[in-house]
Amino acid sequence: MYLLVAYDVSTSTPAGQRRLRRVAKVCQDYGQRVQNSVFECKVEPAHYVAFKQSLLTIINSQTDSLRFYHLGRNWKHRVEQYGKNTGYDIEGLLLVE
Amino acid sequence: MYLLVAYDVSTSTPAGQRRLRRVAKVCQDYGQRVQNSVFECKVEPAHYVAFKQSLLTIINSQTDSLRFYHLGRNWKHRVEQYGKNTGYDIEGLLLVE
Repeated sequence: MYLLVAYDVSTSTPAGQRRLRRVAKVCQDYGQRVQNSVFECKVEPAHYVAFKQSLLTIINSQTDSLRFYHLGRNWKHRVEQYGKNTGYDIEGLLLVE
Repeated sequence: MYLLVAYDVSTSTPAGQRRLRRVAKVCQDYGQRVQNSVFECKVEPAHYVAFKQSLLTIINSQTDSLRFYHLGRNWKHRVEQYGKNTGYDIEGLLLVE
């Protein structure tokens, strides 16, 4: 499964800053950071529930927002990147314009 | 066209802060903010080039990142929202869990 994970974690408290780091850490285990709070992840269907659950246990559902976008197999044709590119191709090749 | 627009604008300078506001303003004309730097937009194909161009003329391509994800007609089944929900349905209904 190719996923875009986008999150907004309230960092007005030290606890929020810790949540932000932990969310990013979990996402890094499954994919690449393409922007500050946006990751492109490749997750095996069997691991998706555990991946999602690990993020849900971290966030504060009152203050933080977490969105998953299922991009589908055709994901490479769905994304256009402009400007500074921090991304690399989940399959291992550097995403270049 | 249903698009996810995600951007990272460097706000270390006053000019960057202005760019951030202008990017958000353009996106607001076409859709809804779902997270700080993430918008879901509904754009007529005939307007897409102009929409994209207006954003490209704002960003600084050395410091800022802009990503478009084409979600396709089936977009509602592609997104999962958890936690604080700032989104509303592009078609006008409030997106609720």
